[in-house]
Amino acid sequence: MRIPYEQLKAEFKRVLISLNFAETNAGDCAAIFADNSRDGVYSHGLNRFPVFVQYVKEGLVNPDAIPTRLSSFGAIEQWDGNLGAGMLNARFCMENAIALAKDNGIGCIAIKNTNHWMRGGTYGLQAAEAGYIGVCFTNTIANLPPWGGTEPRLGNNPLIFAIPKAGGHIVLDMAITQYSFGKLWQYNNENKPLPVPGGYDSEGHLTTDAATIMATKRALPIGFWKGSGLSLVLDLLATLLSGGNSTAAISQSGKKESAVSQVFIAIKTDMEQNAGLIDQIISYTKTSAAENDREILYPGENMLRTREQNMQDGVLVDEKIWAEVLGM
Amino acid sequence: MRIPYEQLKAEFKRVLISLNFAETNAGDCAAIFADNSRDGVYSHGLNRFPVFVQYVKEGLVNPDAIPTRLSSFGAIEQWDGNLGAGMLNARFCMENAIALAKDNGIGCIAIKNTNHWMRGGTYGLQAAEAGYIGVCFTNTIANLPPWGGTEPRLGNNPLIFAIPKAGGHIVLDMAITQYSFGKLWQYNNENKPLPVPGGYDSEGHLTTDAATIMATKRALPIGFWKGSGLSLVLDLLATLLSGGNSTAAISQSGKKESAVSQVFIAIKTDMEQNAGLIDQIISYTKTSAAENDREILYPGENMLRTREQNMQDGVLVDEKIWAEVLGM
Repeated sequence: MRIPYEQLKAEFKRVLISLNFAETNAGDCAAIFADNSRDGVYSHGLNRFPVFVQYVKEGLVNPDAIPTRLSSFGAIEQWDGNLGAGMLNARFCMENAIALAKDNGIGCIAIKNTNHWMRGGTYGLQAAEAGYIGVCFTNTIANLPPWGGTEPRLGNNPLIFAIPKAGGHIVLDMAITQYSFGKLWQYNNENKPLPVPGGYDSEGHLTTDAATIMATKRALPIGFWKGSGLSLVLDLLATLLSGGNSTAAISQSGKKESAVSQVFIAIKTDMEQNAGLIDQIISYTKTSAAENDREILYPGENMLRTREQNMQDGVLVDEKIWAEVLGM
Repeated sequence: MRIPYEQLKAEFKRVLISLNFAETNAGDCAAIFADNSRDGVYSHGLNRFPVFVQYVKEGLVNPDAIPTRLSSFGAIEQWDGNLGAGMLNARFCMENAIALAKDNGIGCIAIKNTNHWMRGGTYGLQAAEAGYIGVCFTNTIANLPPWGGTEPRLGNNPLIFAIPKAGGHIVLDMAITQYSFGKLWQYNNENKPLPVPGGYDSEGHLTTDAATIMATKRALPIGFWKGSGLSLVLDLLATLLSGGNSTAAISQSGKKESAVSQVFIAIKTDMEQNAGLIDQIISYTKTSAAENDREILYPGENMLRTREQNMQDGVLVDEKIWAEVLGM
């Protein structure tokens, strides 16, 4: 089922206003949810909206919160998100990182006590739209066993790199698990096997069955021991730079995932000077002989096509979830 | 066979002086090669030394070169490595990134026309030893097919994160391929299968046979499409920030891997304040029930044990390569 983008956004805004979000904040949050679905990141667009609403109702997300600056030194700053909406806090942080980069070449903002930012690529794109390189990452509740272990103790800690490019920014937005939980849910829902193993069964064998992985809670980190190390290191950086909660603290709080820590970095760059180099790199990459007529794409390239189709034909929605939102 | 650390270092220094390295530079390079073997990174210690010597003889590495600063803006700088020894240039860059971070909280140095830095962890450790968080990455010659392609067009672009910690720094030093070429060479040499698939055979099936992967040149990126995207993005950053050669340019030069681009970032942090948080994170990670008596380690933890053993019993060396160095 497809719904016009503007209608999707308007419904989100209506619901958020009913939850006591101020008009501007409601509009901004609604736009981020609608954009995520529009760009094909359904798991963090419409599909996640009911969870967000639930968090607001439970008081885990405070609609009125405004971040406060805790400290500042040169090109780095620490902020407290005061448990506001993660998307608004994240957008605010990247905006500030860009301002620091404008003056210092590079800027780094760490924030504690913030909430799920939905799709990390949103803030990478934000930097790229402003003509800056953007890097950001977040920690999460434990959802990934460390290498050698069987119980989740690490987060899937999404990591984002964005590079501004005329004609379509390059945006890598990846969780450190092979599949995000949204993807596992989607494959399970469609009763399809995962294209590559995404975790372990109860006997410790790799499996492509999403339901099995959701049951064992043994998701696979990218690159096995490498992703396990990368996830740990990203949590350390987010926690130390913000002075906030680690994956350990979030997981041991006994609550749902809230009060997470995030880092936003912006770097000054010259889009005009870059154009030739970017073209050289992407063109060369695409000269690799493709396997079975597959297409070689840069991160973010496919997103533009999905966006175009969703804007033209309406945004693809899950009927049940859409009905749920209409009834809110 | 085991050789005392000091003897290893002295031999390297002797050879480098014979190649017209100034005494201090020869000593510094020798120490880095010896340290890499001491820490168990044999592939970029003794085992790589003959390749380095060959590069110097061919004029790809200039023993006398000193890096020159091209531009500076706030906390970011661009340098030209003038084709000097990659280890000396990299150490110099991290030193400067630390100096920038001391004044600005964060510092970022990009360098072009430099050479292979051997083990990237060396410069992560350097930042950590100074009490700073260190992040660095390099591009390389094409040695990894992009996702969907069959011919190498991306580099394995090692990425390093280091966090200072009393009692043993946390250092993640990873190539974006599942196995570095040194590791493939090692498994092939020992006639052992890889623990997990490391690439594809000629029919496009995943394989654990190192020799097959070296023949097809189809190494596997960590996390399949994710590592492919990550490698591309790291090359873009190294190239754009330094204004230097991309993997495309290095690969198309028709020469061996030289004149690469690298990025070094240091971030100010407070080791004393961090101690409790780091302990919390690592302790929690280690509470995951281990599989089959495996041990859960943080990146860099095992290195310290290898270092201790190699310092006590002598550094493990490949007899043939050691004999080759003695004969130089």
